[in-house]
This record gives sequence, C-alpha cells and structure tokens, in this order.
Amino acid sequence: MAAGRTAKTNAGRFFEDYQVGQVIRHAVPRTVGAGERALYHALYPARHAIHSSDAFAQACGLPAAPLDDLIAFHTVFGKTVPDVSLNARANLGYAEGRFRKPVWPGDTLRSESEVIGLKQNSNGKTGVVWVRTRGFDQSDEVVLDYVRWVMVKKRDEASDAPPTVVPDLKPALDVSDLCIPEGLDFSGCDFELAGEPHRLGDYQPGEIVDHVDGVTIEEAEHMMATRLWQNTSKTHFDGTMREDGKRLIYGGHVISMARALSFNGLANAQMIVGLNGGAHANPCFAGDTVRAWSEVIETADTDRPGVGAIRLRLVATTDGTVGSLKDGAGRYHPGVLLDLDYWALMPV
Amino acid sequence: MAAGRTAKTNAGRFFEDYQVGQVIRHAVPRTVGAGERALYHALYPARHAIHSSDAFAQACGLPAAPLDDLIAFHTVFGKTVPDVSLNARANLGYAEGRFRKPVWPGDTLRSESEVIGLKQNSNGKTGVVWVRTRGFDQSDEVVLDYVRWVMVKKRDEASDAPPTVVPDLKPALDVSDLCIPEGLDFSGCDFELAGEPHRLGDYQPGEIVDHVDGVTIEEAEHMMATRLWQNTSKTHFDGTMREDGKRLIYGGHVISMARALSFNGLANAQMIVGLNGGAHANPCFAGDTVRAWSEVIETADTDRPGVGAIRLRLVATTDGTVGSLKDGAGRYHPGVLLDLDYWALMPV
Amino acid sequence: MAAGRTAKTNAGRFFEDYQVGQVIRHAVPRTVGAGERALYHALYPARHAIHSSDAFAQACGLPAAPLDDLIAFHTVFGKTVPDVSLNARANLGYAEGRFRKPVWPGDTLRSESEVIGLKQNSNGKTGVVWVRTRGFDQSDEVVLDYVRWVMVKKRDEASDAPPTVVPDLKPALDVSDLCIPEGLDFSGCDFELAGEPHRLGDYQPGEIVDHVDGVTIEEAEHMMATRLWQNTSKTHFDGTMREDGKRLIYGGHVISMARALSFNGLANAQMIVGLNGGAHANPCFAGDTVRAWSEVIETADTDRPGVGAIRLRLVATTDGTVGSLKDGAGRYHPGVLLDLDYWALMPV
Repeated sequence: MAAGRTAKTNAGRFFEDYQVGQVIRHAVPRTVGAGERALYHALYPARHAIHSSDAFAQACGLPAAPLDDLIAFHTVFGKTVPDVSLNARANLGYAEGRFRKPVWPGDTLRSESEVIGLKQNSNGKTGVVWVRTRGFDQSDEVVLDYVRWVMVKKRDEASDAPPTVVPDLKPALDVSDLCIPEGLDFSGCDFELAGEPHRLGDYQPGEIVDHVDGVTIEEAEHMMATRLWQNTSKTHFDGTMREDGKRLIYGGHVISMARALSFNGLANAQMIVGLNGGAHANPCFAGDTVRAWSEVIETADTDRPGVGAIRLRLVATTDGTVGSLKDGAGRYHPGVLLDLDYWALMPV
Repeated sequence: MAAGRTAKTNAGRFFEDYQVGQVIRHAVPRTVGAGERALYHALYPARHAIHSSDAFAQACGLPAAPLDDLIAFHTVFGKTVPDVSLNARANLGYAEGRFRKPVWPGDTLRSESEVIGLKQNSNGKTGVVWVRTRGFDQSDEVVLDYVRWVMVKKRDEASDAPPTVVPDLKPALDVSDLCIPEGLDFSGCDFELAGEPHRLGDYQPGEIVDHVDGVTIEEAEHMMATRLWQNTSKTHFDGTMREDGKRLIYGGHVISMARALSFNGLANAQMIVGLNGGAHANPCFAGDTVRAWSEVIETADTDRPGVGAIRLRLVATTDGTVGSLKDGAGRYHPGVLLDLDYWALMPV
Repeated sequence: MAAGRTAKTNAGRFFEDYQVGQVIRHAVPRTVGAGERALYHALYPARHAIHSSDAFAQACGLPAAPLDDLIAFHTVFGKTVPDVSLNARANLGYAEGRFRKPVWPGDTLRSESEVIGLKQNSNGKTGVVWVRTRGFDQSDEVVLDYVRWVMVKKRDEASDAPPTVVPDLKPALDVSDLCIPEGLDFSGCDFELAGEPHRLGDYQPGEIVDHVDGVTIEEAEHMMATRLWQNTSKTHFDGTMREDGKRLIYGGHVISMARALSFNGLANAQMIVGLNGGAHANPCFAGDTVRAWSEVIETADTDRPGVGAIRLRLVATTDGTVGSLKDGAGRYHPGVLLDLDYWALMPV
C-alpha cells in the first residue's frame, strides 16, 4: 500500500482565522420534510398542535403545518459547526434570534455566518468570536437569524491579538422585532384540540410553571438527533473521548427536549419566534432524566388577530428543582442544564 | 425570581370525573405520512407487502400503500392517554375494535372518547371506566373505533359511587361487522412478492404458528415509538420511577412487535380489520427478547374478490414458550406479554 | 388450546436448493422516500450535498436530490436475505456492482437473484453460492445489480455435490462500465456548499485520506437501520444468540457508517456508481467506535461535463489504525471491519 497520507480533512478554524466583517458560507444545504418531522416527534415529546396537524394549522390561517421551529434552528445551526465551533471550547451565548418565516416540508436550508465581534482573552490562548448566522431557504429568503458567541482556541498563542470588537446586542428582542407568520390568526383557536384552555391573559409575569414530566435520555437518541441536523462535532458521537464512554450531548437536544416537555402547562405557546438569550449551564449525558420549568417574563399583544406574544424563561434540569437557578455567587446550580429566554406566539 | 408557582399542567382525570354519556374530544390532532411509515418500519420488522409497497397495493385495487394499520391505532390511542389513562392503574381490555378505512399519508387524525360504562371497585379506591374511542380523519370520517376499559384511581375515596353501568360488549366481532377497504381485491395477489404461498384455505382453526424470530428491545426504540404516537404516559419515559432505571414499555409497542414478527408464517394476513380483545398479561422491559406465536381461531369468506378473513390469537412472550398461555388457576404464565384476538384480511 | 402446530415459517434455503440459472424473485417490494432519507441521515453522518439538498442536486442537472445510493443498495440487498443468506455461514464477497439509475422518493424497489455459480466445499458440509442480484423499480427498470457470494450450509451432508461452476468476475469495473445519471453535470459545482475544495485532480493514486472522526455504535441504531432495509437475519436482532447479549451488526451498517465518515476528506465523491469488491473483515458490535480511511486507487475522466470518476478503497476500523490492512500472512488485522473497493463520481 502506497504512502502519501494527505490532510484533506477539515481541521476547523482557529481564533486567528476570523476577521470582523468576514462572511462564511457554510456547507451542505439540506432539504427538510416529512421525514425530519416524524423523527423530531419520535425524539422529543413534541405536541404543539400547529406543528402536529395540517388541519389545525389551516384553521389558524396557515397553508399547512410548518415544521417545528427548532428543526429550522438545529438545521441552520448544524451547518455552522464545521466553520465556527469545531475548535470551540465553549458555546457562550445567543442573542437576537429571529424566526422570520416558517419552514415548510420541501424547503432547502443553508447557512451563512458573518463575524461581528472578536475579543482575545487575557490568557492569550483563546478568544471570543461573535457571529450572526443567517439561515436561507431555496429562494434565498432568510428564515432565521441569530447571534452566537463561542470561545475558540488560538492556533498560535504567540500571534497578535486582533482589535477588540464587541457587538452591541439587545438584551432581549422587543415584541415589535418579532416576525409573525403571514396569515396567522388565532381568533378561532380550538383550545380543546390544542390541549389546554390557558391563553395569553391567563399567564402573569413572574409566574412559574412546573412541566412535571421527565425523560431519561439514551445515547442512541441524542446521536440520531444530532446527526439529523448534520452537526459534526465529534464530542457528541465518539465514546472514546471520555473515560466513561459517554458522549457529551448536543446542547440543542436539551433545548428541544425542554421545549417539548413545556407543552404540559404551555400548550398554547404555539410557535417560537424569538430567541433572546441562552446558556448551556451544565453538560448533559445519557442516563440523565431531563425535566423542565418555565417562568413567564412578559406578555404582549400583536397586531394580528388573536395573536399574542409571551416571553418565557425555559429551564431544563436533571434534578427536578423548580424555580431556582443559581447560587449566591451567581453560579448555576449543578442540576441546571439550560437557561433559555425566548418569545412564543400564543392565542390571546 | 418571582414566586407565583401555578398548576397549569394536566393532572389527568380521576374516577369521579367520568359520567356515562360524556364525550371527551382529545387534544392534538396529528398529520401522519411517509415519515411515520419509515419510522414504523425501522422500529418493527414490519413486512406485510400491502403496507410496504405502493405497487403491490395498487395491484390489490388500492390507490397506494395505506399506512400500517397499527399506526392508526397507536395514533388514535395516544391522544386518549392524557384524558383516559394518566391516572390509570391498569389497562384492562379492548373490544369491538373496527378499522373502518385505511389511513393514507397526509391524513390528519384526531380522537374522541365516549364514556360507556362505570363501575366502582369494592375497595372504594378505584373504579373501572369503559370508553368507546373513535379516530377521525380530516374529513371527520371515522377511521377506527374501539372500546377500552381501564382501572382509574378515585380522587377522593370518600366520594359516592356512581350508578354501575357495564356495557354489553361482543366477545368477538362477526365477519359481517368488518369493514373491508374500498376496492380491495386479492384475486390477483402475487404470493411470491407477498413473501409466502399460504392462503386462507391453508390455515385451520386450532392451528398454531410459531413465528420463530426474536427481537431484543432497547430503551431508545420503545421511547421513540411511544413518543411518535404522542403518548404522554410518564412511566414509559422517566427512568427515575423504578429502582432499576428501566421504563415500563407501552403495551402497544409489544402489539406492533408481535404483529411484525408474525409475518413469518402469516405473511398474507395483510391487513388488520378487527380487534376482538386483548390483554397485556405482563409488563415488558428493555432487554427482553420478544417472540410471538399465533393460533388460528376461525376463517371466513367475504363478499370481496379473493378476500378472506382470518381470526387470530397473537401471543407475545419473553421466554419463547409456544402454545401455552395460562396456568391451572387461569393466570397468564410470567413469560406471556400479550394475548391479542384480532381479524385480518387474507387472500383466499 | 388445540394442538396442530405447523411449520409455515421460512426455514431458508440450503446449498442443495440452488441450481445455476435459477432466478429467485424476492419478496416484499418496498416504496422508499422522504422518511427513509431522514432516517438514513439520522443513523449515519451522511452529508454528501447531492443527496442532502434538492437545490444542490438541481444545480448539478438532476431533477431533485436522489436518495443516498446506499439506501438503494441496502433495500435491494435486504430483500435477498430470506432467500440467500438465512443459512449462510459467511458473506464472502461482492463484485460487478453497478448503480444504474438514481432512486427517487416514491420509487418502489424489488429484487431478483440469479444463481450464477456453485461450488461445494471440500468439507462436504457447505458450499459457495454466487448470485447476481438485480434491483428493479416500479417500471421494472434495473436500478442496481451486483454479484455476491456466500457460504451456505448443506441440508444433508450426504447429498451429492453439484457440478462446480465458478463465474468469471471482473476484479474491478472499468470506468466505461459505470452508469452516470442522466443529466449529471458537475461543471458548475459549488465547492463551498459541497463542503470541500478538493476535486478529482487533487487526488493521486496511492494517496491515503484519514477521515479522522469516530462514531460509537449503539444497539438501537443498527437494529433500526437493519429493520428499515427489511433485513430479517436474526443474528442482528436477537440478543439471546450470544452470551454477552450483543447482536452481530449487519455489515451494511458498517459500509454506510464508513461511507458517511469519508465525507471528511472526500466530500466531493458525491455519488457511488460502482462496487468492485468488498470484505467484511471482522464482526462489529455495539460499543465499537467506527473510524474510516480511504486509499485512492485510480481516477478517470468521463464523457459528462465536469464529471470524473474516482476509485477508492474504503476501510472501516475499530482501532483507528490508518493505512495498514493485513498482517504478513495476508490476514486482516483484528481492528479492520471493512475493506471496500468502489467507484464514485466527483467534479473534475
């Protein structure tokens, strides 16, 4: 057998490889459809009616049931991994995430990221990279965009630090920033079919909803989900990277699990339209039993018939603690997996 | 973080919450299609040709391959769980199940249950509730109906017992009760493509067929299946409910596994059209190796070309015992998981 | 319960049951589509753009994204198992595999095998059977054909040996033997979207590409895959067949895993069109971490715009060794799972 071993594989980008203003077109567009939907419903206990039933969605003014919003998020996110987070030490945050149009079966999604911020860390070994990622459909319309920042290794610790640029990000989207799907009308919402009678006016800021149910996670499930989004981060698949053979679960798997669990108490938070922020507080592993609770942050009206907006904090835990997130020093409790701040649309 | 924890989650109905004549419209309609079919075939070794191939189904007079009959059953059943069996102690039986029309990719299913019987148990702590559940498609036509009875906890043991109403149920459907899909014609059935040469005349009442093969079940599989049917019963998902971390497997998972295994020996029992009765004799857990055998109860002709009906007892076991169900005291052997009595259509 | 246990199940064919020239029509045609594609992408880290995106495929002259080539292979192969390999002791080899047309969502596949060779082994207990298997679509056009040979048990060791017929098989297909999909045109290939800049001219015979990533395999995953192809070989599903409860993983699962891993370094080897040979060198079990490397055997031009052909050796391992296959005695190293020789199409 001949020699000639070559290095054609993707080693990922290091901190020095990013410049503010750079736009990275991510690889491998993906057509999503009925298969992805069915798998989503098999992997998560997803039950929001507008994503489950064409007939229900049509009664709400849409042409058919759009794919679950997080299918769009995971697909767009997954494409960024080889270019943004292959050498990332940590996923630090999200901001200004807007779901601009629903994604329908048959749509083809691709992603681009623009580097909008850079800041070398004081240790000289790593830096923070801010990107604004846009997901496009086959008509080059933006279906989703969001800002994400990650800590990335430097290739060469001796290399110069780039000028520091820290983007000015909104702590949360205003309700006027949200994109409401064309035609959406909740004025005739069938609350029996939706699964709960609670409407926007029934929720109060500060209210805590315990979603009660727990799901114990298996390796096969989170790997199938993560592959489905074509996320290539090897920590999610390669059991030889840790002594115990466990694989670090993709943070997005926890987001989808918690969102699906939140149906029980928030069945009418039908569609996710904004992502204000989020932290993956602790890693999740197979064998963990994920539970969730939500806090109502605010509610708002929109100009669409029957459509309100609710801003929620969604928390996933492994210990079932409800209503408490951090210790006195501001550190997340060890049982907290996720702290996510998002906007959803709900019948008024 | 604010206080105000609220109880918006569904606590399920208790025995006192049911009245004879009450109709419960179940939540979350569901559009089913190509994705659900592929998952069904990945989760069970399903091979009945009429559900596997559009071309085969068309040669049998249908417009395309209908979804596997049990996809309809599980979907309709899953919707009833939050209203009927969240506080159930036991699933006691099925009767008068009729598959009235095939379900096609793109159909949207929803369910309603009518309470048709109530009987408080002598211990005063629980009662039996009989419901007749109907599954509807997007045109509000019934695709499936069946009677099921469950033992449900009382909320308050001191509450009065309701008047006892025990419905009069058929021990088995007559062949004239069965609904045969419009256009079905087995007269040109291609037995080579179907997988076996055995037709209705080759089966005799009393005949036992050992389906031979075994499948060892994994947690990830039964949870994916059960979520796919939007069945929310927490015992199937939450590994903290038992000391050994195992989750109680949804009885319907065993039904589908046994039905799929029965292809080997009953490949031409193409479509399920009637459910006469059934018992989940013992619980099933991950790690169990499920095997199946069938007993022919009776065979009958129908008025459709080439279409016969076969009534079968389908038994799933964990120990591979064939032909024996109960001990001298009438108790199921510990290795028996399922004892199901159903009608299928088979070429004559 | 009545007696009368009957043997209607398929016991599989033995060596005596084959004659040269015999054509076996395999059972259970199967319609494949969007669901199978989504599952394929959930089970393997498949990312070749032409199979992932309708838009990308259309930019390459195709009407839509064809299903991943190995979906066709596994589906056609799976149907042969009950007739060819139920009593096989070993899967000995493949040759002359040609992917003749892409398979599209909605196509219905069925298989036929012609016996083209027989040779009893000197021990008198087994023999080798060569079959040429053809996969047909619903128009009875061949989508795929290949030769496979297996070692099969004799039913009766005392039976006479058949005349020995050993087919004359090509050690490898010539590039002129390959079928290039109608309309395929790589001249405008978008290498950014495809995921790598490397084109045919960048690869040299003898070059070794280490695909770097590893995937640890779970029982639930390989069983779901194998069932999806309706492969009924019980060794893949029945945990009671081995002391350790592990199931022998279908060799095709390893092929698909290795092919998907090879994206990293061979992203532009877009479509598999020829299968020259292959050996399943060692068995694979759940818990194994599969890695892959490739060796470039040759490259060739075709008469289609921008379309070249690359012949590759694809090796899957459990130990991550790269570039070495066999020991001095010509035996595969214990860490080698698969040694596959195939042709793919790649932009020039």
